[in-house]
Amino acid sequence: MRSGTGGTPSKIARYGNRVFNQANLIEDFSRTRATTERLASPLRAEDQVVQSMPDASPVKWHLAHTTWFFETFLLIPFLPGWRRYDDRWGYLFNSYYEAVGARHPRAQRGLLTRPSVQEVARYRKAVDAAMAELLEAPGESADEVTSLTRLGINHEQQHQELLLTDILHAFSCNPLRPAYHKPPAAEHHPQPTRPNWLSYPSGLREIGSDGTDGFVFDNEGPRHTVFLRPFRLADRLVSNAEWCDFIDDDGYRRAALWLSDGWAAVQAENWRAPLYWQENGSGAWQTMTLSGMQPVDLAAPVCHVGFYEADAFARWAGKRLPSEAEWEFATRDLPVSGNLLDEMHPVDSPLRPLAPMDEGPGLRQAFGDVWEWTQSAYAPYPGFRPAAGAVGEYNGKFMCNQMVLRGGSCATPAGHVRATYRNFFYPQQRWQFSGLRLAEDV
Amino acid sequence: MRSGTGGTPSKIARYGNRVFNQANLIEDFSRTRATTERLASPLRAEDQVVQSMPDASPVKWHLAHTTWFFETFLLIPFLPGWRRYDDRWGYLFNSYYEAVGARHPRAQRGLLTRPSVQEVARYRKAVDAAMAELLEAPGESADEVTSLTRLGINHEQQHQELLLTDILHAFSCNPLRPAYHKPPAAEHHPQPTRPNWLSYPSGLREIGSDGTDGFVFDNEGPRHTVFLRPFRLADRLVSNAEWCDFIDDDGYRRAALWLSDGWAAVQAENWRAPLYWQENGSGAWQTMTLSGMQPVDLAAPVCHVGFYEADAFARWAGKRLPSEAEWEFATRDLPVSGNLLDEMHPVDSPLRPLAPMDEGPGLRQAFGDVWEWTQSAYAPYPGFRPAAGAVGEYNGKFMCNQMVLRGGSCATPAGHVRATYRNFFYPQQRWQFSGLRLAEDV
Amino acid sequence: MRSGTGGTPSKIARYGNRVFNQANLIEDFSRTRATTERLASPLRAEDQVVQSMPDASPVKWHLAHTTWFFETFLLIPFLPGWRRYDDRWGYLFNSYYEAVGARHPRAQRGLLTRPSVQEVARYRKAVDAAMAELLEAPGESADEVTSLTRLGINHEQQHQELLLTDILHAFSCNPLRPAYHKPPAAEHHPQPTRPNWLSYPSGLREIGSDGTDGFVFDNEGPRHTVFLRPFRLADRLVSNAEWCDFIDDDGYRRAALWLSDGWAAVQAENWRAPLYWQENGSGAWQTMTLSGMQPVDLAAPVCHVGFYEADAFARWAGKRLPSEAEWEFATRDLPVSGNLLDEMHPVDSPLRPLAPMDEGPGLRQAFGDVWEWTQSAYAPYPGFRPAAGAVGEYNGKFMCNQMVLRGGSCATPAGHVRATYRNFFYPQQRWQFSGLRLAEDV
Amino acid sequence: MRSGTGGTPSKIARYGNRVFNQANLIEDFSRTRATTERLASPLRAEDQVVQSMPDASPVKWHLAHTTWFFETFLLIPFLPGWRRYDDRWGYLFNSYYEAVGARHPRAQRGLLTRPSVQEVARYRKAVDAAMAELLEAPGESADEVTSLTRLGINHEQQHQELLLTDILHAFSCNPLRPAYHKPPAAEHHPQPTRPNWLSYPSGLREIGSDGTDGFVFDNEGPRHTVFLRPFRLADRLVSNAEWCDFIDDDGYRRAALWLSDGWAAVQAENWRAPLYWQENGSGAWQTMTLSGMQPVDLAAPVCHVGFYEADAFARWAGKRLPSEAEWEFATRDLPVSGNLLDEMHPVDSPLRPLAPMDEGPGLRQAFGDVWEWTQSAYAPYPGFRPAAGAVGEYNGKFMCNQMVLRGGSCATPAGHVRATYRNFFYPQQRWQFSGLRLAEDV
Repeated sequence: MRSGTGGTPSKIARYGNRVFNQANLIEDFSRTRATTERLASPLRAEDQVVQSMPDASPVKWHLAHTTWFFETFLLIPFLPGWRRYDDRWGYLFNSYYEAVGARHPRAQRGLLTRPSVQEVARYRKAVDAAMAELLEAPGESADEVTSLTRLGINHEQQHQELLLTDILHAFSCNPLRPAYHKPPAAEHHPQPTRPNWLSYPSGLREIGSDGTDGFVFDNEGPRHTVFLRPFRLADRLVSNAEWCDFIDDDGYRRAALWLSDGWAAVQAENWRAPLYWQENGSGAWQTMTLSGMQPVDLAAPVCHVGFYEADAFARWAGKRLPSEAEWEFATRDLPVSGNLLDEMHPVDSPLRPLAPMDEGPGLRQAFGDVWEWTQSAYAPYPGFRPAAGAVGEYNGKFMCNQMVLRGGSCATPAGHVRATYRNFFYPQQRWQFSGLRLAEDV
Repeated sequence: MRSGTGGTPSKIARYGNRVFNQANLIEDFSRTRATTERLASPLRAEDQVVQSMPDASPVKWHLAHTTWFFETFLLIPFLPGWRRYDDRWGYLFNSYYEAVGARHPRAQRGLLTRPSVQEVARYRKAVDAAMAELLEAPGESADEVTSLTRLGINHEQQHQELLLTDILHAFSCNPLRPAYHKPPAAEHHPQPTRPNWLSYPSGLREIGSDGTDGFVFDNEGPRHTVFLRPFRLADRLVSNAEWCDFIDDDGYRRAALWLSDGWAAVQAENWRAPLYWQENGSGAWQTMTLSGMQPVDLAAPVCHVGFYEADAFARWAGKRLPSEAEWEFATRDLPVSGNLLDEMHPVDSPLRPLAPMDEGPGLRQAFGDVWEWTQSAYAPYPGFRPAAGAVGEYNGKFMCNQMVLRGGSCATPAGHVRATYRNFFYPQQRWQFSGLRLAEDV
Repeated sequence: MRSGTGGTPSKIARYGNRVFNQANLIEDFSRTRATTERLASPLRAEDQVVQSMPDASPVKWHLAHTTWFFETFLLIPFLPGWRRYDDRWGYLFNSYYEAVGARHPRAQRGLLTRPSVQEVARYRKAVDAAMAELLEAPGESADEVTSLTRLGINHEQQHQELLLTDILHAFSCNPLRPAYHKPPAAEHHPQPTRPNWLSYPSGLREIGSDGTDGFVFDNEGPRHTVFLRPFRLADRLVSNAEWCDFIDDDGYRRAALWLSDGWAAVQAENWRAPLYWQENGSGAWQTMTLSGMQPVDLAAPVCHVGFYEADAFARWAGKRLPSEAEWEFATRDLPVSGNLLDEMHPVDSPLRPLAPMDEGPGLRQAFGDVWEWTQSAYAPYPGFRPAAGAVGEYNGKFMCNQMVLRGGSCATPAGHVRATYRNFFYPQQRWQFSGLRLAEDV
Repeated sequence: MRSGTGGTPSKIARYGNRVFNQANLIEDFSRTRATTERLASPLRAEDQVVQSMPDASPVKWHLAHTTWFFETFLLIPFLPGWRRYDDRWGYLFNSYYEAVGARHPRAQRGLLTRPSVQEVARYRKAVDAAMAELLEAPGESADEVTSLTRLGINHEQQHQELLLTDILHAFSCNPLRPAYHKPPAAEHHPQPTRPNWLSYPSGLREIGSDGTDGFVFDNEGPRHTVFLRPFRLADRLVSNAEWCDFIDDDGYRRAALWLSDGWAAVQAENWRAPLYWQENGSGAWQTMTLSGMQPVDLAAPVCHVGFYEADAFARWAGKRLPSEAEWEFATRDLPVSGNLLDEMHPVDSPLRPLAPMDEGPGLRQAFGDVWEWTQSAYAPYPGFRPAAGAVGEYNGKFMCNQMVLRGGSCATPAGHVRATYRNFFYPQQRWQFSGLRLAEDV
């Protein structure tokens, strides 16, 4: 990739080959870059340095790494005359691309007090200016430039979500429980009624993307056939009220409900409730949010649970999690809208899952609110091959030990998600905005 | 289960409902019990106590635990007048059944010098005698007794294989490299020629067992439909010679060949070759076997590689691993024969993978030699529900983070394996007799 | 202590009862507080948050904790009407005083992005103003207030040194190797000649302080008698040139030179040179300093070695480390001057150990440059009892597993150290400005 | 040492130069070897393999290692024609002598099922026969042979004690709580009255051994002068009854009583009582002993406490631990007798600490019962130099991070201990027969 020859146009096409005109691309690029900076704007310099666990990264690192991505995969190979902004920064801001070279150990990102927040801001400006130049006149490599810029935009959107989940985790480690944005006005939510169950028939289904309809990640393809048995899905997400029932019924204390590895995690980590939940003295639950500690909204979807918990809850409820193919089949014709991140005014987005609205029949909360754990291990689709070059490391090499999540969350940029989108995390991880929807066999 | 009411006949039927007559059952029970003891017979008391890693168990523990299984799931619920052999041994010899109560920590099995080898032998005798009594006159619960005894027999066969893999690991930790049985007579094996590739057409396939054809484990069902694309399989296992090529081509040093978690394991564990391989001074490979250190047989299948290695090798070869559905479809009509453990003369079995014989067209080495890693994560088949009661913990709760292996090995009792059989281990585990066969898309 | 009754005047007197007039005390207090802020002034907000290892603390934490000390031990018990600055900060900024209550886990100090650098600055101002008020009119508790304020001043001076050693460690973790202050002008130092050996006769000696000559810490007393055999001391510290000889003579590879625990550390940590040393391509040593990476000055004292290394070096040299009693006897009549931290212009201090000056006969480099490891385990002097109340935890509870160092370093405030001063660290710790002087028996 | 030239007679003389005639030496050698075998005789082969923690070693290893010591330091250098018994065993049975070469990792001694118990017995016989031959006719190296054989005898006696403490630990890990020997007949012990306090005057004292009065270890010398202040010692050991008072007074829950590192250990290990103590349902304490679980004898000395606990207890009691110099001064003229191991009938020894007998005035329980923790860090005496050659590693390299214990225990062979004897363990270690005696300043 660094030499500009790593990815042929035909390969890169799998990242989406809709004909974008350059104007759109430039606009999307600029908007995405601005959104990231708006997301960082409520934070002080001190907040932007900290790394609260190896899974998370400092805000400053997100700001620099997304910029490094454009510099490494676009400017260096394609912009004549571009000189590396700083020879030593490639080492600091490479995340996991083995093909690009050695890199700073992930768990030590929080030790990098330099470059400072201000220096990173200057780096962003310089790369943005050069990207504008490149996008105006991409020359012969226009297809590849377009394709990789789309990838870089989507990559940065992923880091926008991570920036939020990571600062939430960092703030949760501070006994002062700082708030990232203002608490929402108090609303009254009636506890939701029991979910309705929607039925889906058996049959051969086409799953995944053939890349003909806008940008997709390589792991969303190839499109392929699967055989689905008849199934039902709950029309809404599992709520905090239901999760409280699970807790009260000793859900976290009954080995029989858990996968063996899950039960080991419960005991090792002493899990008793979702991540960030705390019982106040009088038996009510509070939870750490981007607005600081707040009472748990019983009507809202449960959030910050891992796969092990989602799976145990489903077993307790006498149901199961949907497979990713079931989920995709059920949602592929739904509009992509919901409680997602507003890219223009990101800090004013709710940034928390919300109680479902009463919208009549059909699947609710499919997109936004919380990522939905599926029962599917993250694996290559039949015929999958990663892109050539370093960007081939983007998704493929993680296809083991992780579980697929679908649908996006309240922190996912609104234009970023779709029915074929495959997110993935380890089954014990809980710091994402992750919840669940129940399924059952017919 | 302990009260005898945990499993209804209809549930247990899933463990196989072929009509066994009682005589057969008794014979199978006795043979299996005797095989285990023959397997332990070359070992001294000292050898039988040691636990060389948490994944492995002492030989003495295998001898006692398999006996505990019959006592717990058969004698206590079904044999009137049976009194627990020793009240404290249930705690010591329960492996992982949460429903049966607390148990000795797995990693500390090697600290149990008591009960002694002799006391365990007496325990086996006492339980065998009582089982004979129960099987002669099972009374009203005959179906359940038959079904659970079949389960116990198959359970003990699994531990026969583990006994061998665990003592091999223990002996490998001793610089004296003790031998479990005599080294085989030296044979000359020409290096195998390139494998032939067998083609399989696309279509809807029935996979898994409906339990109507003899004993199966619950995880082999339900039978269900999957859609397979056309694929090809190599007609033989990957050989040590081919593995040496992988090593010589820096297979263990090129990140691009590995899954991300696999590469982390390579570096953390400093893997440079399969488990047990050691380079002698002059560049040739030796490997620890049940006959002590032996030269690596280049014509024989590679063994003691984990999933990460198998996956990396396949990527290096420009191929992939088969899915478990592909493997099952390709083997379901083949006879179950091969280099397996001879139950009557187990110590005289080869106990090592062997070069493929030249047998004309068709898939070779499907059963025996080495377990074949597949690309399939171990997950419940659609509609799977574990058996009620404690034996429901047998398989289901492990359906996460592990990968499926198929086909049995040189240490698998000959009558134990079949085309639908699903073995599973974590991707980093290497101490089983595990290897691979290559697949490719058409 | 919190109630103001924890320390009686007679007890506190052990912290020094020289008659300080209040004007002096106020001046000393103000100067010390200003020095700390000057030390922090070259650092950006980002730099002040980071904690690079559990042994180290963030600069911001040092700024707040020293302030907490005055608030907790002076303002709360003695200043009428003082209200806690922030109820939650006591938890955040208590270091290790069990008697004062629970506290934030030490290893997580780097997660506290709030309070911000600015908020801590406001805290310092508020406490300084209140302290000025208290010191102007201490009322009936004047003796205790004086004594505890002296303790607080000396406590803050200790944290001034730690602030420097901790930021050096943090910067050393950054591949950019930031500089805290400007590199010194290049100077030429001839390699020092062999040390001269000074002889000291046998006899009964009085060691330690009786507290009648200015402030001392409780661990410096009681004054007591020891019997010393005749010994010799090198007249200067061990130099980097000599340490290079040790390295070149395989000092880090010969087990026979090391204590057993030290050798285990060498292997576990892969020590090959002092902390911060790095070989450049061409065989010369560089080292991380407060001015960034610099060539090792061969004429300067070796620095950033732990006790294990100092002990191994002495064995290699056929010598030994001095005992703390020998060191104190040899230095008790020397003036306390040397390469120490200039409290008025701390950032302009050299902040690195310097080659010894040629000053004629007598012990050189006794104070300043580097702390000198002794062979003495840190233990209570005969008759030692810690002060009553929480400040009794200051020194006494650490009297196990650590070794005594003497003499101060280039980062020790000039007025802080003296002949009876006992510093102590664990034998493996290397991030202080620590080196050694050789001794031998006659 | 291996070449026979490592230790000159004058050096080795420090291990004792009393004129032993060879007959005595042979008798002592034979008796010691026989005692070890008697100690192992109640154990089965299974018991002799296990290693229950890295600090402990298997019984079989003790049997082999003590034999290796004689082979390595006596037979190989001094017996003409001796050929190594097995070339590979040196690697297996070297404990920590770096100069003798590489060795099996300490924590993996429990994995060595081979050589078997029987093979080790044959090894012992062969070495014993060769040693008899050497001792009959030591030739020119008689002094060295005598001196090293004395060292080997004392070394084996140390391992006799370790064999007992290690098997006790191993049995304590087994829920069956096996007994090594028969429980003692029940005796009634009145709870001891308060201890009497014995006073010792101030003065210059000679401490340590000059090696002129029988065998001593190198760490017991040189004899040297120390100045002691007046002190008092309790005339008996701290009892279990007193320890129960400490527990009942929340001794394990009050941070103020503990050294900082000790308090960290209390919390990390969740210490609530001495090692091996368990509360039965009704509030009474039981403890694991070499006779299995037994009620705690309130009149007997507390045992299996570490230095941290001993130090905390003393602080709770308003006293302190004695220094090793005080202890030695107080005991140097006492007869070495007490509850020690009977070398002729070791298995019939009590093997547990006993209530003090009423013997009139003077220090009781000075020798035997339990090792007494002192306040002294284990350090070289002034002028100490270890012996040349590999045996120089015997004691010297451990002189850091450990604390001195004095007086021997119920598991120490009767002829092994003396007033100058210095034992040493890490402050957290508790599996030895270790307790304490209180001291105070006058």
